[in-house]
Formats: sequence, structure tokens, C-alpha cells
Amino acid sequence: TRIVLLPGDGIGPEVTEQARLCLAYLSERRELNLSFETHDFGGAAIDRHGEPLPEATLAACRAADGILLGAVGGPDWDDAPARPEAGLLGLRAALGLFANLRPARVIAGLEHLSPIRGDLVRGADILIVRELTGGAYFGTKTIDAERASDEFAYTREEIERVAHVAFAAARRRANRLTLVDKANVLATSRLWRQVVGEIALGYPEVAVEYVYVDAAAMALITNPRRFDVILTENMFGDILSDELAVIPGSIGLLASASTGTERAALFEPIHGSAPEIAGMDVANPAGAIASAAMLLDHVGQSEMAFLLRGALDDVLSSGTLTADLGGGASCSEFGEAVRTRID
Amino acid sequence: TRIVLLPGDGIGPEVTEQARLCLAYLSERRELNLSFETHDFGGAAIDRHGEPLPEATLAACRAADGILLGAVGGPDWDDAPARPEAGLLGLRAALGLFANLRPARVIAGLEHLSPIRGDLVRGADILIVRELTGGAYFGTKTIDAERASDEFAYTREEIERVAHVAFAAARRRANRLTLVDKANVLATSRLWRQVVGEIALGYPEVAVEYVYVDAAAMALITNPRRFDVILTENMFGDILSDELAVIPGSIGLLASASTGTERAALFEPIHGSAPEIAGMDVANPAGAIASAAMLLDHVGQSEMAFLLRGALDDVLSSGTLTADLGGGASCSEFGEAVRTRID
Ligand SMILES: CC(C)[C@H](C(=O)O)[C@@H](O)C(=O)O
Ligand SMILES: CC(C)[C@H](C(=O)O)[C@@H](O)C(=O)O
Repeated sequence: TRIVLLPGDGIGPEVTEQARLCLAYLSERRELNLSFETHDFGGAAIDRHGEPLPEATLAACRAADGILLGAVGGPDWDDAPARPEAGLLGLRAALGLFANLRPARVIAGLEHLSPIRGDLVRGADILIVRELTGGAYFGTKTIDAERASDEFAYTREEIERVAHVAFAAARRRANRLTLVDKANVLATSRLWRQVVGEIALGYPEVAVEYVYVDAAAMALITNPRRFDVILTENMFGDILSDELAVIPGSIGLLASASTGTERAALFEPIHGSAPEIAGMDVANPAGAIASAAMLLDHVGQSEMAFLLRGALDDVLSSGTLTADLGGGASCSEFGEAVRTRID
Repeated sequence: TRIVLLPGDGIGPEVTEQARLCLAYLSERRELNLSFETHDFGGAAIDRHGEPLPEATLAACRAADGILLGAVGGPDWDDAPARPEAGLLGLRAALGLFANLRPARVIAGLEHLSPIRGDLVRGADILIVRELTGGAYFGTKTIDAERASDEFAYTREEIERVAHVAFAAARRRANRLTLVDKANVLATSRLWRQVVGEIALGYPEVAVEYVYVDAAAMALITNPRRFDVILTENMFGDILSDELAVIPGSIGLLASASTGTERAALFEPIHGSAPEIAGMDVANPAGAIASAAMLLDHVGQSEMAFLLRGALDDVLSSGTLTADLGGGASCSEFGEAVRTRID
């Protein structure tokens, strides 16, 4: 099983290293036969190759079973010829990564870390499935000094394939799916409602509801338990998944997966490159480790994913916390604690 | 001074009535010479005239100094030939209401009502200025069974005029303005940054920063005090202003103003029509009364606006609360309490 590591920029390398050590530990003890190769990506790749997604990196990603990314970007590349984020958008497009899965869960005993009142967030467990290669991100753009425009388009097929991912996920979870849109204003939203309504017929055990994006932005705060799986288009997903991400207490905790038409899928913590703390061994590797667990699920090692996630939860519940959560554990100490908990 | 009342649907009529009584009370005592006329709008107008914004209503609005709207919509009109919300979009377009002002403030002593932790929201005081007649709301739309699209466009002039509203507001407040956009993805956002940067030169006392919409959705929860005035385009404004609206504790508290190219401006509480409690005298009229205060500002009665807002805050701080805030006051009792507090 080939795993490509893209440590990227800022704290990317140190959190990716802790996640890699967890995977390597499992691979050795349980003979998973995981192989690792590291490639340049993002700002680091701009520095070395003049572009954020070099040919060699892309080729390796195409041949991989799973890709583990750290973080990209930072002020160092504000005036660079290419933007590090362009590497991310390029990778999404090249690998056809159309479904972005963003789970967030409030861990029992850690409710006090949430910015939201404990009584509201206790037990909240939400998965946002964000469409990742359509909508305004890849539409036609025009700009001159007087006027600019972005096209925001979806085809039936683009909606269908991501809807299947979301319904399948709902079936493995609490069997509830909320389509978030703005059908009272947008034509694209009306097509989403129609297509999702048709696909729902194939998943009779999943209860479907439709919520406007403005109402969803409220309900995530006032009543997060009402959601199980949220399905939405690219831009709304960008906004809502980040809103959701602060609920567990630190964005350092959260993982994401992007799956597509190819075998290779991309796994990354949702935090940024945090250049101000890079190299200081204080970053929270929990998001990277949770991403590694999602990668294990993807390569057919669900039992190992379960083990790794269990160890991670145990360490967090026991109060071993990094600085972002008010604790004193370093990045490497936290990673080591997770590995120790595995068996 | 001509005030047009559009009570609309659901709880609209009862909250509008409490706001009207406050204005009438002030008008009598202080000889403001306000005149009131009531017109059909929304679902109520569909029932009586077959359309949500009848000609007579629009003509009255055009001739008004200020318009006080209650709420529109409800399940009764799900299958109606026209949607009640179309009346709202029609009024915005007809009166050129391009700037939507959405203030939200956590009232001292009422921090515990917020879904967000008291230490985070104490003293938060934010004004979102949302562009209201551009972007995807009024762009070209296409839809067939296989594909749909929405155009998302802005002209320099559309950005300039709403930016001036936001900078002028910042100057009356804490002199800080945050432009929220998605300039790493959208061409329209890049035009916004450019135009706002140019306009900022004319307001040297206002400190300007640029924040991506996904980061803003996080920061509203984790660090609301970092914002003073937020300026943003229509769709982002729709989402963020509703996210902001839950922070004070109930959307029943919040007011809005929409100003444009004509003299007439529109004032409305931000809550919906809440048909399930309509006619029961339990709705919170605070948002409608706060909207009436914004109307007084608009018609040059800032001193009266100050008086009304002060009375409203006093009543809330003293613990007279409607059911949405866990209190036992009825809609009319709350309105009466505010009027009693005025002098
Ligand atoms: C960097 C940016 C283009 C990206 C996005 O908006 O998709 C990021 O915010 C994300 O969510 O991964
Ligand atoms: C009803 C709808 C069209 C409207 C909007 O999105 O503008 C509403 O959500 C609002 O914010 O006033």
C-alpha cells in the first residue's frame, strides 16, 4: 500500500511526521505493509521547483493509494510567482477529488473546550460532505477594472456522484441527511434539490431534509445535534465546514478526506500552516493523526483505523493536550502518547 | 414624516404593532409628526391580490420616508402562484436598496443568553454591511434537467456605493472595517479588494483588514470582539449576518435597515414569520422596536432613536423577557414596558 506524504509548509512537516510514525508503528506491528514516500508540495515546492505542484509530485500522487498532506501556504509566498494554494486546487482537479469529507465530533469530557455552551454541543457528531471540484471554484471568471464575474455552475452528474458519497456515509452513521442550499434564490440549488430528491429514492432508510444555508449557519451554533450528514456545494461547504470546525474546541483536532474518481484519495488536517509556531514542536498533531485514520479506512484497514482513532480519543480524554487546547504536551509527546496507547 | 407599515405574515402584524405603538407614543409626546399607513405585503398580499408586492403597496413605499416591515412567508404559500419572498426581492430591487445593515450587540448582563461562552462574547458589538442588490441574487440564471448556473457579478460602482456606507458607519463606530471575501478563489472578490482599497484612502482614520469568508465564519464564534464593521457581498452577507444573529441569544432581538438610492429605506426585524406562534401574543417585538429605532435615525430623529434604544436596553437588562429568551412577558407586555421606560 503506497502512501505519499506531502508535508508542505509551516507546521505541515512536524504534524505529518507524527501521523506517519503512527502509521509506521501500526504497519510494523500488524504487518500492514505500508510504504511511504515524501514529495515537495505548496510553498516548499515553489522554493525548490518554481511551482506548487511539480510534475514528479503529481505523478507520485496518481500512483498512490493514499496521500497524507500537512499544510500549505504562508506569508513567505505572498509575492511568489505562484500561490501555494494553487497546488491544492490543482491536485483536487488532477485527481478528480470531488467529495470532501469533514467530520467533527465533540469528545465526551472535552465539552468545556468548545466556544459553544456545553449543553448545546454535548454529543454533537456531524459530517459535512462538501462538493469540491464544481461551482464557483472552477467556473468561468472575468475581471477588468469596471466589472468582475464568477460563474457558479453544476451538472446533474456532478451532483449525483457526491450525493451518493453522502448517502452512503449517512447509512454508516445515523441515517439522516441534510441538503444545505439557497433554493429560494439560486438556480443551481434548485437543480441540487431535484437531483438529491431523486437519489434519495435509492436510500429509503435515510431521512432527508432541506435547509437554507443562512438557517444552517445559525443551527450549527444553536442546535448542532440536529445534524448528522450535511451535503452541500463547494462554496457553502467551505464556509460551513470551517464554522463547524471550531465547535470541538480547536481546529487542530480535525481531519478531512477528499475522494474522487481515481484510487488515490487525499487526507489532511484542516488547520493551516501556522508559520508563527512552525518548527517549535508545539503544534497539535491530532488532526493529522485523525486524517491518517481516515486514510486507513480508505485503504481497507478499517480495524486499524478504529484502533488508531480509539487511541487518539483516549489520549485526548485523559487530558494530554497540546497548547492550542490549553495543555502542555508538545507535538512529538502527543504523537508518542497516541502510539503508546495503541496496544 | 410618512411611515409605511408592511405587517406581512405570521407574527409580522403583532410585532409591527408594538413597534408602531412605540413610534406613535414618541410622536405624540415629542411632536414628531409621524404619520402611519398600512399596506398588504408578502403572503397576505398574495391572498388578497394574487401577488406579494401589489402596485399600491409599491407606490406607497416609494412615497414613504421609512418603511417598517414585519415578516413574510410561511407554509401557507408553499404552493401559491407567487412566493412571498419574491415581494422582498422585488422591493429591494424597486427601491434600489443596495446596503443592508445588520447590527448585533451582546447586551451587558445578558451574556448568559448567548449560545457562545460568556467570556468570548462579552462586549461584542458588530455591524455587518451586506451588499443587497448584486451578486448571485440578481445575476443571470440558467437551468434545465442536466445543468444549472448562476452568475455572480459585481461592477465597480456597486462596490463603491456600499463601501461608502460601510466606511461612514465605521467612522461613527470604532473605526475598524473588515472586508470579507474569497479573493483566493473568486474574481469578484479580487475586484472588491481593489475597489475597497481605493476607497479606504478617503477614510484614513478607518483601519482596514481583509479576511476570507471561511476564516470569518470561524472568528465570529471564537473571537467576535475582533470585528467592528464587516463589509461583504450579498451571499456571504446573507450567511454571516445570520450566523452573527444568534450570538446575542435570540434572533428576536435583532433589527436591520436597508438603504438605497431613494429617500425611502426599509426597516425590519431579522426573524421570520414564525407561523407556529402567530397570533398568540408571545413573539418577541424587540427586533421590530429596534428596527423602529433605526428608522428614527434615518428620518433625522437620532435623539429619539437614542431614547427608544435606551428604553429597550433597560427593559431587557432588567429581565423583562419574552418566551424566546426564557421569560414570561407577552409581546404586548414587552412593548408596553418599553413605552413606560421611555420617559
Ligand atoms: C485555500 C482555499 C482555496 C481552500 C478552499 O476554499 O477550498 C481552503 O479554504 C479549503 O477549504 O481547503
Ligand atoms: C428570503 C431570502 C431571499 C432573503 C435573502 O437571502 O436575502 C433572506 O434570507 C434575508 O436574508 O433577508
